[in-house]
Amino acid sequence: MMTTADNSPLDRPQGPLAGITVIDLTHVINGPFATAILADMGARVIKVEPPQGDDTRRNGPYLGEKSLYFACVNRGKESVALNLKDDADRTIFINMVRKADVVVENYRPGVMDRLGFSFPELQKINPRIIYAASSGFGHSGPLTLNPAYDTIIQGMSGLMEATGFPDGPATRVGTSVSDIAAGLYLYAGIVTALYDRERTGHGAQVDIAMFDATLAFLEHPFMGWAATGKAPPRIGNRHPSMTPFDTFAAKDRPFVLCCGNDHLFGILCHTIGLPELIQDPRFVTNVLRTQNNSALKTELEAVFSARTADDWIQELDAAGLPVGPLLDIAEATALPQTAARKMVVTAGGLKMPGNPIKLSSYPDCDTRPAAPELNEHGAALRQEFSS
Amino acid sequence: MMTTADNSPLDRPQGPLAGITVIDLTHVINGPFATAILADMGARVIKVEPPQGDDTRRNGPYLGEKSLYFACVNRGKESVALNLKDDADRTIFINMVRKADVVVENYRPGVMDRLGFSFPELQKINPRIIYAASSGFGHSGPLTLNPAYDTIIQGMSGLMEATGFPDGPATRVGTSVSDIAAGLYLYAGIVTALYDRERTGHGAQVDIAMFDATLAFLEHPFMGWAATGKAPPRIGNRHPSMTPFDTFAAKDRPFVLCCGNDHLFGILCHTIGLPELIQDPRFVTNVLRTQNNSALKTELEAVFSARTADDWIQELDAAGLPVGPLLDIAEATALPQTAARKMVVTAGGLKMPGNPIKLSSYPDCDTRPAAPELNEHGAALRQEFSS
Repeated sequence: MMTTADNSPLDRPQGPLAGITVIDLTHVINGPFATAILADMGARVIKVEPPQGDDTRRNGPYLGEKSLYFACVNRGKESVALNLKDDADRTIFINMVRKADVVVENYRPGVMDRLGFSFPELQKINPRIIYAASSGFGHSGPLTLNPAYDTIIQGMSGLMEATGFPDGPATRVGTSVSDIAAGLYLYAGIVTALYDRERTGHGAQVDIAMFDATLAFLEHPFMGWAATGKAPPRIGNRHPSMTPFDTFAAKDRPFVLCCGNDHLFGILCHTIGLPELIQDPRFVTNVLRTQNNSALKTELEAVFSARTADDWIQELDAAGLPVGPLLDIAEATALPQTAARKMVVTAGGLKMPGNPIKLSSYPDCDTRPAAPELNEHGAALRQEFSS
Repeated sequence: MMTTADNSPLDRPQGPLAGITVIDLTHVINGPFATAILADMGARVIKVEPPQGDDTRRNGPYLGEKSLYFACVNRGKESVALNLKDDADRTIFINMVRKADVVVENYRPGVMDRLGFSFPELQKINPRIIYAASSGFGHSGPLTLNPAYDTIIQGMSGLMEATGFPDGPATRVGTSVSDIAAGLYLYAGIVTALYDRERTGHGAQVDIAMFDATLAFLEHPFMGWAATGKAPPRIGNRHPSMTPFDTFAAKDRPFVLCCGNDHLFGILCHTIGLPELIQDPRFVTNVLRTQNNSALKTELEAVFSARTADDWIQELDAAGLPVGPLLDIAEATALPQTAARKMVVTAGGLKMPGNPIKLSSYPDCDTRPAAPELNEHGAALRQEFSS
């Protein structure tokens, strides 16, 4: 159902969330990542910024004067600057809440309460409102007020300890995966609550924690702990129980090879001219290959080092083995696959990732409306929500 | 709306997806991760396995004879073994599709077509059906049939190249993050399509790719490429543009410290007895500190190495600085926060991660129904869907 007249000035994507209005109090990346998906899916997202604007407007990388970081996770949104401690601005905000479907924020827990906009207060304004919050540790528990940068969460959840090589340090994932995973859970939680509201008529509070999200992503380390009570050791790039299933150095650069069973291992040994390895007592079964993975890697890399990664990938792929190159982001985005899937889109002329949720019922555009300037739609929005 | 009588033998969680029936053809982890969330949210999930069962039943880690890996991502589901090439079993499956809301699979693209169960065929059976697929590269594009293990996707997407230290190798994330991120997008896509169906009456095809999902997660590397046309270099555990914001070695083990601005840097220098660093020309601004991050880290670690990580965390936290310990999964799950958030649950007596989507409108239980034995509910399901 349409809960507001759509007065948005943006030419938004068609999508399943058309007619939904989101009041977006989020900042930096975790919350904005979720509300950008809402916008991609057709919702009207009104970004309510403090008078000085979202801090991320001042974070690089930049292209000219534009923060790409800000542009990416705020595409397709409108912006109004409101001071939520000012009475006139609070009235505007309250009028928005009355007409909206969802309020989203990623402040430290307690901020909304102190502003007088806790979930019970928001429900008094609009009984059908969905109030969605994301934070480092969630809105409950003894660590609820702890600082919650992505690196702190990656460190405390066990993710960094699980990433890296046995003889090297615990390693941060090279993207803010705890922020982003929580952002995606936040989107999922909001849509789940919207679905529920269609059937029950009731809103809900959605409470997402970066820490919870990261724990839920820790599949193998979590299972290893559940089995033994101890954290499994770091194992670099190899698979914990299948061998050879790892990165291997070729003449020029490494590549990925995944031989998960005896059959594929046999094909590999014949293809690379080492058939004697099949009967080698160290390598006869997958369990033995895994125990002796280092010795096997040495044998294989002695052969692989003679030719380039591209050569090996071509030959091993032709033999029916699962292989792939190790690409950087410039090479990955240059793959024709990336264009075919519209996974590089532009908004305001800037390149950014597309939306991985491909639905047959709506177009998957390769352009999106640009992220707004601070307060770009302020006058129109203040007018629209003056009552 | 309830589309089937609920004949499930399981005591499922109450949740927003009660009344939804999911035919779950997924295997290994990416698809099952999504359908496990559907089950956590109250949907009835019927796992249709080939006669030999999901391969993951035979993958460790084990606890006794139970694959924890299988148990975790298949909790709360029913199981029936069907041979989809056998006429009688196809009839059962078709009857299921007629009465279900969602069909989910993560076969290599083309498998469902060859079985005669493409989306158009499924729509002929049930015009309201939602057909959701996850695969390595998606159901379109030149790489659609490429092999798609998590390590291959991490390698090809740029994630491995972005993870690790400047003087070390490209590093795989220590969990199957491409599988899991795609699984979470799959859940999000399914619920988005369910929401859309409530309003339009139409089903849809949902097409998720592990490659797309990983690209969308690559925030900073992607933005760096968008700004310069080149992949940014690996930078280990530090922040790309704020310093000091990294892991630091203490006497016993490393910890995380995040000083994102001059104010926090000043507090840090006074707290650790190095006030002269504030005026050091190498460290006067955040930009300079980032350029000279290695020199600054050396200065800081010379002090930090004198005392334990716990000591420093306590002292720096008391000074108002964002800090955190580097924990492994055994330590992370032992935090009282983890229990307070119900992020370790049990199913069939086995420990596994809870559900990060916390909704105020439904209970967040700390037990879930166990994963099924192969064909555990076969007789009842064959009877129920005999017509």
